[in-house]
Amino acid sequence: MTVVPADDGPSEAQGKDARVARTRADVSRAALQVLIEEGCEALTHAHVAEIAGYSKTTLYTHWPARLDLIMLALDALGEMPHQERSGDLRADVIGELRVFRQAVVDLRLDHILSVMAQWASVEEMARVRDRINSDGQRPLRGMLSEVLDGARLEASVSMLTGVVACPTLMFGTLPDDAVIEAAVDLVLTAVQSPS
Amino acid sequence: MTVVPADDGPSEAQGKDARVARTRADVSRAALQVLIEEGCEALTHAHVAEIAGYSKTTLYTHWPARLDLIMLALDALGEMPHQERSGDLRADVIGELRVFRQAVVDLRLDHILSVMAQWASVEEMARVRDRINSDGQRPLRGMLSEVLDGARLEASVSMLTGVVACPTLMFGTLPDDAVIEAAVDLVLTAVQSPS
Repeated sequence: MTVVPADDGPSEAQGKDARVARTRADVSRAALQVLIEEGCEALTHAHVAEIAGYSKTTLYTHWPARLDLIMLALDALGEMPHQERSGDLRADVIGELRVFRQAVVDLRLDHILSVMAQWASVEEMARVRDRINSDGQRPLRGMLSEVLDGARLEASVSMLTGVVACPTLMFGTLPDDAVIEAAVDLVLTAVQSPS
Repeated sequence: MTVVPADDGPSEAQGKDARVARTRADVSRAALQVLIEEGCEALTHAHVAEIAGYSKTTLYTHWPARLDLIMLALDALGEMPHQERSGDLRADVIGELRVFRQAVVDLRLDHILSVMAQWASVEEMARVRDRINSDGQRPLRGMLSEVLDGARLEASVSMLTGVVACPTLMFGTLPDDAVIEAAVDLVLTAVQSPS
């Protein structure tokens, strides 16, 4: 058995780890800012380095590929905002969709969704995308699972996500409150009627 | 009034026009092939030139920007496939969504939708995207407008588009027949129940 001594003492190694972590956090935030404000095409090493205040060389050393920059941006995304539950199913589902609609504006979820879809042939991106999207849909799925299951649950989760996501991604528009309420009522009316 | 003589005789000019049109059609098809098979990142002048069998210089001369290549690819997309109407609303809506699902596979509509969303801050792309997506949704909208209007019509068009588009764009999966049928039944059951 060979014991490999560390190059640095523990405190020096910890100092280096902390520096790398700080650089990573700075570059992540800068990459997300570029993705949100300028879109995927602007997410280059040179531009992110400039925004983050690091050299291009630093960025290329740690994150050589364009995909690395996109993954960093997604790291900085954090938790999706969600609505607190009141216990009134209709109000809670409507509230959750309104929060989703606001997040499309604040976080440019149209850019985020489309960049993840575009790179999803890379396995690592497919995993991150599935996690982000599953987390995003979880509260909606939880609410709907109180009254629906099986194919009707799957259908309703996609349908209510689609009320916000489809106009956003297909036409760059957002549904107004009346459309969100109509969508929720279409689903909940069907649930309450004898099938 | 000044009469400006043409530089070329009519037949020579026509020959040139025909050549340009043929080049454009060839490059369009090649660009769409790259977009469908390899995705947006692969859509470079060098790669499209190679696939189309033209020089890079020819491509740069006529279509200098990357956006030009994307627009050319969308030109070659043609009409979206649609289901012929049988007159049975439930069967027709289900059939239309199944055709949409198949088109996602055949035409990689996930790539197409995401690249259009990503470039939509360019006005020309926003127009083309709106036209392609409106054309795509038209038959579904036409069917649903027989039983719905106003906010409920807008909601149901987005919801039923979302049943196919959301799993595709968010998870790279397709809904099975049971989910498509459940979605259509949720909407049509609600329509038939007294509101």
